[in-house]
Amino acid sequence: MKALAINGGAGRMGQTLASGLSALGRFSIAALVDTREPAELFGANYASSWDDVDASTIDVVVDFSSPEGVVASATWCAAHGKGLVIGTTGLSSDQRHVVDDAATKVGVVIAANYSLGAVLSEKFAALAAPYFERVEIIELHHDKKVDAPSGTSIAAAKGIAAARSAAGLSEMIDPTVRHTVSGARGADTIGGIKIHSVRLPGLVAHQEILFGGPGEGLTIRHDSFDRLSFVQGVALAADTIDATPRLIDGIESLI
Amino acid sequence: MKALAINGGAGRMGQTLASGLSALGRFSIAALVDTREPAELFGANYASSWDDVDASTIDVVVDFSSPEGVVASATWCAAHGKGLVIGTTGLSSDQRHVVDDAATKVGVVIAANYSLGAVLSEKFAALAAPYFERVEIIELHHDKKVDAPSGTSIAAAKGIAAARSAAGLSEMIDPTVRHTVSGARGADTIGGIKIHSVRLPGLVAHQEILFGGPGEGLTIRHDSFDRLSFVQGVALAADTIDATPRLIDGIESLI
Amino acid sequence: MKALAINGGAGRMGQTLASGLSALGRFSIAALVDTREPAELFGANYASSWDDVDASTIDVVVDFSSPEGVVASATWCAAHGKGLVIGTTGLSSDQRHVVDDAATKVGVVIAANYSLGAVLSEKFAALAAPYFERVEIIELHHDKKVDAPSGTSIAAAKGIAAARSAAGLSEMIDPTVRHTVSGARGADTIGGIKIHSVRLPGLVAHQEILFGGPGEGLTIRHDSFDRLSFVQGVALAADTIDATPRLIDGIESLI
Amino acid sequence: MKALAINGGAGRMGQTLASGLSALGRFSIAALVDTREPAELFGANYASSWDDVDASTIDVVVDFSSPEGVVASATWCAAHGKGLVIGTTGLSSDQRHVVDDAATKVGVVIAANYSLGAVLSEKFAALAAPYFERVEIIELHHDKKVDAPSGTSIAAAKGIAAARSAAGLSEMIDPTVRHTVSGARGADTIGGIKIHSVRLPGLVAHQEILFGGPGEGLTIRHDSFDRLSFVQGVALAADTIDATPRLIDGIESLI
Repeated sequence: MKALAINGGAGRMGQTLASGLSALGRFSIAALVDTREPAELFGANYASSWDDVDASTIDVVVDFSSPEGVVASATWCAAHGKGLVIGTTGLSSDQRHVVDDAATKVGVVIAANYSLGAVLSEKFAALAAPYFERVEIIELHHDKKVDAPSGTSIAAAKGIAAARSAAGLSEMIDPTVRHTVSGARGADTIGGIKIHSVRLPGLVAHQEILFGGPGEGLTIRHDSFDRLSFVQGVALAADTIDATPRLIDGIESLI
Repeated sequence: MKALAINGGAGRMGQTLASGLSALGRFSIAALVDTREPAELFGANYASSWDDVDASTIDVVVDFSSPEGVVASATWCAAHGKGLVIGTTGLSSDQRHVVDDAATKVGVVIAANYSLGAVLSEKFAALAAPYFERVEIIELHHDKKVDAPSGTSIAAAKGIAAARSAAGLSEMIDPTVRHTVSGARGADTIGGIKIHSVRLPGLVAHQEILFGGPGEGLTIRHDSFDRLSFVQGVALAADTIDATPRLIDGIESLI
Repeated sequence: MKALAINGGAGRMGQTLASGLSALGRFSIAALVDTREPAELFGANYASSWDDVDASTIDVVVDFSSPEGVVASATWCAAHGKGLVIGTTGLSSDQRHVVDDAATKVGVVIAANYSLGAVLSEKFAALAAPYFERVEIIELHHDKKVDAPSGTSIAAAKGIAAARSAAGLSEMIDPTVRHTVSGARGADTIGGIKIHSVRLPGLVAHQEILFGGPGEGLTIRHDSFDRLSFVQGVALAADTIDATPRLIDGIESLI
Repeated sequence: MKALAINGGAGRMGQTLASGLSALGRFSIAALVDTREPAELFGANYASSWDDVDASTIDVVVDFSSPEGVVASATWCAAHGKGLVIGTTGLSSDQRHVVDDAATKVGVVIAANYSLGAVLSEKFAALAAPYFERVEIIELHHDKKVDAPSGTSIAAAKGIAAARSAAGLSEMIDPTVRHTVSGARGADTIGGIKIHSVRLPGLVAHQEILFGGPGEGLTIRHDSFDRLSFVQGVALAADTIDATPRLIDGIESLI
């Protein structure tokens, strides 16, 4: 059983990770590091800074804190020979440099999305792409999301377009010749792949990748129902990583 | 058991209707009227024109032929006191006038869509509309369809918008403030209702009306898998209509 | 703006209702009644018992507490001439008698399910039932649910069976003549309506009612993503009810 | 452009293949072999038996005829050094022996299912299996299908169970402890994988493989809308195969 320290352990994501990771039964939560005291400890010691963490009790550090927090985690992991799993986004190039530097001393996983379902969706879409004439993406989110299309859907479109191109398939042409109302055919993205963004209260985060060929369709649907969806990908990263120096960028290569 | 004459009985739609209506067990196919000889007769007599049809053998006429064909059917029905069910579209105002005139002498049903599932979808959407904050429509068709959005989806949007308006709900505002790629949010139709049009080979004709409110969603999905989907609506119209003069425009009122 | 008192206001459901109802903008939360102090007040006064509630500040009482709590709410509402909305289930016949008695003095709504989407699903299913040959139900829940099929799906089947029967449709016959593995065709419920229960982690509470006829399908899908799904039905009940004596059992009649 | 001979070329499947394969633009249909004359020739010569086929005009033979027809095709291909693609099922062990023997002289592909979407579904399901706690399958077919569950769904379950087992995951335990109506949880197949079979008129052949884990779901859905769904898999096999002796059993290895 690996012992984890969670940086940002009092935040919503930190608390969710502590709860979800300990429930898996193959990790103990040894330390929750945060400036604020966590609502729940999940058997961990609370530390207000890395100075208060006993390195001998920790195997791997998980960081879903802030760009500044990541710098502290990476520095501490490099100094103490601990693997590091980073889910924090929005790092500056200086901050990212600290992470890359740590990866020359210990193992580091950094990823924007730890949902296994999302990563598998993207992988399967790229594998299916060569075998179908056309593909479109529908992504559906709650109505508080302010951007469209989602970053995840654009990443999927890129993977599909690359796979189509590698298989010698040409750019898709929209069959529509007459618009009763303009705009119905969605965002025209790389390779002619259309993305449709639905925004409704009640929804969380959902995506359908729809392939069509003669007489058949193949649909890959991913539903994120709550932030627990990140737990399994973090667990997979924490299982994999240790003090051996290396940088894993995105969890695709772990699957 | 009502005896039917089908005008346009040798065409794909006429043959499908003859097959589907006779399979229901409550109609006999007494005459197939067409300039060409039908591939299959389904127990009917073939007539190359209305002059060759024995009116005493017919209860109701079904017309899925052509605008010119409808004029002949309507004239014959008015002369012989037979109910008439019309699925042919694209009538000129003169042709439509002949139909309206026939309806002062016999019963006439005229509709653009005889699919019960489509009509019920539209009805349920209007009923649900007052109870949800937001609604969007996704319509999915084969890639030979050249227009977007579909006429069915626009009709559904109109019904929803009218129901929202009657319930005092305001026009929907799109929450999107930033487009990574433009166009993702679809066609902006009446009342702010978004319609998204997907075009893929393999698909036939499908539509989802998605309602969202706090913590929940309600989706009404209709799938047309083949033209047999019109059979039941035609049967319902043929069950209803007789020589009593009246005009039923759309089968909504029959449901 | 109606002023609400919420009995059980410190519980998870009470807090969700206070949050969700105040967010709608047409209710104020005047009192949260509970033996424990609530984590959040949403502008309300906290009262540890009904003795501490100033009746002049309250228009309608909402009760999602316990069977004993309902007795206290109903007694207080009857004494002070306030409408009462009850979501608590599991009442004994004596407790139910107190509720029925209160309804002879003030308006009372009592329902097991306040989700508008669920109630509309059931209504639409009954409306669609006469027009399709066959119908089956798939209900999908998280894997902590210990019973199958869900009560909601059985209620839907009853409504569909009654509507089919009223329309003169016969009991459905399962077309399966050979089972490769037994049990695949699901629970055989009233009128031959099959219910299929799926249990997976990640899911919340979802239901699909699938109708099939010649060449087409109509599917009514309801998704409950979280307990906020009850807010709108409670709001509709609170909008409707006042001191005028009456008993509304189930919110179907409000829709 | 490869020239194809289609055995069983006058049957529904043969005509569909001739139409679909010629539409792809990379095959010519050189011969349609059948005891009956085909309704449409698609540019091919009609041959009532293999004796009438000019071997110099043919590159690959496609056989969707009958077990007896397969024997004739395999014998002719072995004698003339032509690749063979077989979609006919129900071969006796003697008939299968002829096929295996032919594969020692020329290239042979034999498969029960040439739908790329079905094969990719099965492949993706096996790849996803190690990453999710639970999985269930829903297969939905028209109401003329007499067996349940479908062979395709059982094959998918076997692949998933093998992948789970290889990853060290234990057999799934059904969380249901109380059945309101028995049978709701479907067929209990290999590894505890539940299969639910839906039978409705209007449907063609559809399958959903649903994976669930903490906070998320991944669904792989395949829709067969008509027999054209086999065209692409046959094309892939015909692209691959030539006179070089080998036996490819199932098209999975071609993907």
